[in-house]
Amino acid sequence: MSRLYRLLPAARRLRIANDTLQEASFARSSAARIAAPTSPHIRWQHAQAEATTSAAGADHAPQEQPDRSQKQIKYTSESYPNIQRDSRFKELNSDDVKFFKDLLGSESAVIDGVNQDALSDLEGFNADWMKKYRGKAKLVLKPDSTEQVSKILKYCNDNLLAINPQGGNTGLVGGSVPVFDEIILNLSRMNKIRSFDDVAGVFVADAGVILEAADNHLAEHGHIFPLDLGAKGSCQIGGNVATNAGGLRLLRYGSMHGNILGIEAVLPDGTIVDDLSKLRKNNTGYDLKQLFIGGEGTIGIITAISILCPRRSQAVNVAYFGLESYAKVQEAFKEAKHQLGEILSAFELMDHRSQALYNKATGARLPLEAEHPFYCLIETSGSNTDHDSEKLNAFLEHVMGEEIVSDGVVAENETQAQNLWQCREGISEASQHFGGVYKYDLSIPLPELYSLVDACRDRMNEAGLLSADDESKPVLDVLGYGHMGDSNLHLNVSVRRYDKEVEKALEPWVYEWVSKRSGSISAEHGLGLAKKEFIGYSRSETMVRLMKQIKQLYDPNGIMNPYKYI
Amino acid sequence: MSRLYRLLPAARRLRIANDTLQEASFARSSAARIAAPTSPHIRWQHAQAEATTSAAGADHAPQEQPDRSQKQIKYTSESYPNIQRDSRFKELNSDDVKFFKDLLGSESAVIDGVNQDALSDLEGFNADWMKKYRGKAKLVLKPDSTEQVSKILKYCNDNLLAINPQGGNTGLVGGSVPVFDEIILNLSRMNKIRSFDDVAGVFVADAGVILEAADNHLAEHGHIFPLDLGAKGSCQIGGNVATNAGGLRLLRYGSMHGNILGIEAVLPDGTIVDDLSKLRKNNTGYDLKQLFIGGEGTIGIITAISILCPRRSQAVNVAYFGLESYAKVQEAFKEAKHQLGEILSAFELMDHRSQALYNKATGARLPLEAEHPFYCLIETSGSNTDHDSEKLNAFLEHVMGEEIVSDGVVAENETQAQNLWQCREGISEASQHFGGVYKYDLSIPLPELYSLVDACRDRMNEAGLLSADDESKPVLDVLGYGHMGDSNLHLNVSVRRYDKEVEKALEPWVYEWVSKRSGSISAEHGLGLAKKEFIGYSRSETMVRLMKQIKQLYDPNGIMNPYKYI
Repeated sequence: MSRLYRLLPAARRLRIANDTLQEASFARSSAARIAAPTSPHIRWQHAQAEATTSAAGADHAPQEQPDRSQKQIKYTSESYPNIQRDSRFKELNSDDVKFFKDLLGSESAVIDGVNQDALSDLEGFNADWMKKYRGKAKLVLKPDSTEQVSKILKYCNDNLLAINPQGGNTGLVGGSVPVFDEIILNLSRMNKIRSFDDVAGVFVADAGVILEAADNHLAEHGHIFPLDLGAKGSCQIGGNVATNAGGLRLLRYGSMHGNILGIEAVLPDGTIVDDLSKLRKNNTGYDLKQLFIGGEGTIGIITAISILCPRRSQAVNVAYFGLESYAKVQEAFKEAKHQLGEILSAFELMDHRSQALYNKATGARLPLEAEHPFYCLIETSGSNTDHDSEKLNAFLEHVMGEEIVSDGVVAENETQAQNLWQCREGISEASQHFGGVYKYDLSIPLPELYSLVDACRDRMNEAGLLSADDESKPVLDVLGYGHMGDSNLHLNVSVRRYDKEVEKALEPWVYEWVSKRSGSISAEHGLGLAKKEFIGYSRSETMVRLMKQIKQLYDPNGIMNPYKYI
Repeated sequence: MSRLYRLLPAARRLRIANDTLQEASFARSSAARIAAPTSPHIRWQHAQAEATTSAAGADHAPQEQPDRSQKQIKYTSESYPNIQRDSRFKELNSDDVKFFKDLLGSESAVIDGVNQDALSDLEGFNADWMKKYRGKAKLVLKPDSTEQVSKILKYCNDNLLAINPQGGNTGLVGGSVPVFDEIILNLSRMNKIRSFDDVAGVFVADAGVILEAADNHLAEHGHIFPLDLGAKGSCQIGGNVATNAGGLRLLRYGSMHGNILGIEAVLPDGTIVDDLSKLRKNNTGYDLKQLFIGGEGTIGIITAISILCPRRSQAVNVAYFGLESYAKVQEAFKEAKHQLGEILSAFELMDHRSQALYNKATGARLPLEAEHPFYCLIETSGSNTDHDSEKLNAFLEHVMGEEIVSDGVVAENETQAQNLWQCREGISEASQHFGGVYKYDLSIPLPELYSLVDACRDRMNEAGLLSADDESKPVLDVLGYGHMGDSNLHLNVSVRRYDKEVEKALEPWVYEWVSKRSGSISAEHGLGLAKKEFIGYSRSETMVRLMKQIKQLYDPNGIMNPYKYI
């Protein structure tokens, strides 16, 4: 990881990233993670900025302004006045609470706001960390076994008590906090690692294990959890699976649907789905566990997972380069897949506006002096430092020689690698630095991925909403960046202030644009409450109907995470 | 791929594989594939031997003898007298046939055995290639569009006509041929490649495209289909997905559940499931397509797939070595995963009995002179020949220096690589060479994977059924081999003749043994008709109940591939 490259093909210079920032661990999430792990509100400053999606309505907009942490969080029921509490659901009483207290035994397993005032204790579970959603739950249950979860759900199902499953409460779409008075079933006490087979690479653990704890355990055995994301210090692996989290390692290790080998879950009627297989191959019937992956807790609660974990890479390299067009970005991506093949672990795209804004907002020097319309960050992870460096070198020589890439730098140590990553990861905060930002997390087929950014800028221009200098215009800039390797675009509309006109120009236009290209309006964040009403832009009526059939099959009373998903 | 290794650590010699067989393509399936592609009976001699699983009863045993091709294939209804035709299903009449002829238009799209004698034309569709299963269908339909499939299914559902979906008819468990008079819906005319995006690596094609045709198309664009198996010249990609085929590339590229991005399918009521996404990330609702992967055509018919395809490797290396214990095999596997990491594409296990039998049956010289209790074959696939060779070299030096591996050879050209693979792939035919073989395809957690072979040999010995020399004993040998990398064991009980006593000693004992270790009684072949009654050994009553719920939901009339699966 400390190799130095100096490439001089065709009078081009591949420079070394400036080592200007403070020393930092290469674990690039660590700097951005967990201000206060005990507070469920602001857990990781950086991911917070990155991940926020556009608000569904103006009600949310003010909360996205930089000063939102000063404000009282609005109740979701007020932000979404169209959603009414389902009158079929029973309201909690003392007898119900007694049942749960007797069942769970421990004092610490129940936060009781029914028999006493526990508002402040409940607040951290009722509100999400973005301060965008806030429920009114009066009861939090923290079972410590699958059997307890089963008994809780059966009781709730028999008594029509609604349930809000909750892992690390790090979601981005309001899926992990109640809308009204749903009981919060929090998995944090189910945090035991059950086993790890370091020959087969199979890891089995309770759903409530923190992702970072899982990964640390695996690191001791030379393996990694095949998922990495900014919230790893707070999020739980059960929640990761329930939301089919994507994250930073997807390009290399694939999705949960391929890596999860088994699941233990509890259905609303208390049935324990005992599908915690440790086998890579098992062709004996429908693969029902897949419905729970990305099911967002709407048909049952995942209580344990079994997952295939790869060996940890011994060598990591990071490069950053400039390109003259999106066509060349695509060429570079093809070449990277071709020449770096099995060691490519990230291919990230940033347009020049995103880099300029990052520079303007933070004052950080950009790695390349000249301006290029596009920039890419690539990372390789492999088992041999020399081999990986040689491959990366050959790739860079090729793409520069062929004039696919105009200029570039390669990190020669972990700090430089960290700095290069910061140019990508710092965009989110930068994009709301001058007022606010409308954000969209989208999947779009690669050939058209970036066209949306241009189209959106044109649209803002035509509507007379955009100006770089004129302070009277709400929109400052329109930028695009994201996980090129996963066809995942982040479209950011950076604004001086939140504005109804901007919102009307953006929605549903963005969703329609994505829908016409058969894209996805939620690439990795899920539906939750925020995207529920927009699913039609990514799924046909038939698909939605079939999904509702599944919901009806497993949760006929609708008690699981109500008001959300589909 | 033509690099030569000569390792001499600690007085051990890593020799070069004998280049004794004829020149052959490195595509190791090619030599073993397709004697007569137009005949649905014997398509690939080699895979036929490899893949046959134990017969459920003595009725099947004679069909597994070498001379079985001379015999008339018994009707499944006679082999399985306990299965009765479901009287709810209507019997076909001329009006039904007229409807289908009018719908499909083309003469070649219908084989009509209702209005005329078409027994010989139907035979290839009614019988499986193992000559183990034979149905009595009087009608074969070959639609060429999803709309036609939809109209066929709707008509059948409305009229309670049972359907047998059929791809390449290369299955191993009787799932692809009818049991009674089910209409055969054959996908062979739906064979169009719809698109390939060589930047994203996303391939979209009709279900009836032959796997090899798909792979050849991808090869032209420097990519591979992430599945490879002996039947690739005949099997169809829709069938591969419907049976969740495992094959040779699973260790490297993972399962269908991770690689399939989208599916188009038709439900029994004619509903077209339009989920043919090309996106790697799409978190908008339940991932319903997963139910069709491995669903074996029991809830609908897959008409098209969208799949993520990796770049084709430029370098391939093969090595073969001997080890002194199964503990050392596990150590070698751990080291291979550690040191070869991202380039490891196969890790195959063979015990010494399997190699001795291969040598005895074929006369082929084994790669190593001395005998070792275990042998492994490893393959690497990567983007750089020199790097891969160096990694493999370092790995072999390490495992030999540490005395994990006792001796070994590395192929220096494609012919040698082919010969080494033949030592692994030739076991199946060898194991039935002296009479017959009882075969089991099992997933077992790695630490105990091989214990079953010893336990089974002990059991045969204790029952007085096993002798290497005494011709009066039915069992000649008990051997084990398989895909170590996937925890997939092939247990072969090589017999001089099929024998009721042997069968009684084996079943359900083998299934019970596997069940106690939470293994799978069908690692990659599926359930079909052959394993339907044994699912309880791999799945709990709860899981089977939940699976039946899904079947009931999608196919309430039970017309889809009846009598099979669950």
